[in-house]
Amino acid sequence: MARWEPGTSERLRAAALELFASNGYEQTTAADIAGAVGLTERTFFRHFSDKREVLFNGQEQLIESFLAGISAAPDDAAPMDLVAAALESGTALFAHERRPFSRLRQSVIDRNPALQERERHKMSGLAATIGDALRARGVPEPAATLAAESASTVFGIAFTQWIGDGETRSLTDIARDVLAELRGMVGGRG
Amino acid sequence: MARWEPGTSERLRAAALELFASNGYEQTTAADIAGAVGLTERTFFRHFSDKREVLFNGQEQLIESFLAGISAAPDDAAPMDLVAAALESGTALFAHERRPFSRLRQSVIDRNPALQERERHKMSGLAATIGDALRARGVPEPAATLAAESASTVFGIAFTQWIGDGETRSLTDIARDVLAELRGMVGGRG
Repeated sequence: MARWEPGTSERLRAAALELFASNGYEQTTAADIAGAVGLTERTFFRHFSDKREVLFNGQEQLIESFLAGISAAPDDAAPMDLVAAALESGTALFAHERRPFSRLRQSVIDRNPALQERERHKMSGLAATIGDALRARGVPEPAATLAAESASTVFGIAFTQWIGDGETRSLTDIARDVLAELRGMVGGRG
Repeated sequence: MARWEPGTSERLRAAALELFASNGYEQTTAADIAGAVGLTERTFFRHFSDKREVLFNGQEQLIESFLAGISAAPDDAAPMDLVAAALESGTALFAHERRPFSRLRQSVIDRNPALQERERHKMSGLAATIGDALRARGVPEPAATLAAESASTVFGIAFTQWIGDGETRSLTDIARDVLAELRGMVGGRG
């Protein structure tokens, strides 16, 4: 982000989402997005490498926020404690104010198979990175992969609920509930 | 498959895999594959819609074999019992004789990002279909999605072990072990 233009990225992102949602992702060009907020295409490309980047440039930050929870956990934390810690810190990124953006973003992705595949790739990368972090802490296989995939699954389910119509709970609270459901289902009654 | 030419699909598939592995997937054409077993390109296209189909045409059968286990389970089976039943029947498809083919296929996929994405799509479709089957049996959300994703994750981990160098256990046995690990980790010590 260009420091001398505070808010430009955010304005471009908001305009892009509106155009993607109303006119279609494929039909929207970088010039359209820039023009919608009175900027040039060249300015757009100072902020985003392409229009897809508008939808996916938070991936690095998302991964880091999950990893931060794992790093901060006690040395003797069990794999599922690490999953819980990763979800606590990862979901904290999604403030209530972000929900309308996330809803709009998802509606754009749901209508475009190539974006759906990019999103699957992103989630699979998140799980792989969490798995690496768990193995680096000494969690053996297959526990590390099982735990990492569980974190990604719980996050995905919680996220879908979070952006649901009328949902008001925080993503963190929803993720806690879904994780509790997983623990009850897998370890308990099942 | 054309009934009047028993074994042709299998011969084409084996030739395709060898060519993909030795010359590269992108570099191999349908004509190359057909030529390697003394057949015409036209014959190839009677068996496969394109060369990618050689790697992915078992998807329908894979899904059906997972669903068969769910259908056969008692009405009062808990979600994790349904996961276990789906894994038992789904993994039974992978006889020991199939292991060399599966290894070669995976080595081709591992070297090609577009095929990796197709494989992710396949696994995500498997989880979605299992989830549908569980919901149709009355399993509520988020249990149905958690169980379906767990089945897919356990299958993926078990499959990776099964095609590992020197591995001799059956895929069914490995999947049982991985599922037991998940149950211990999620419900127990974690």
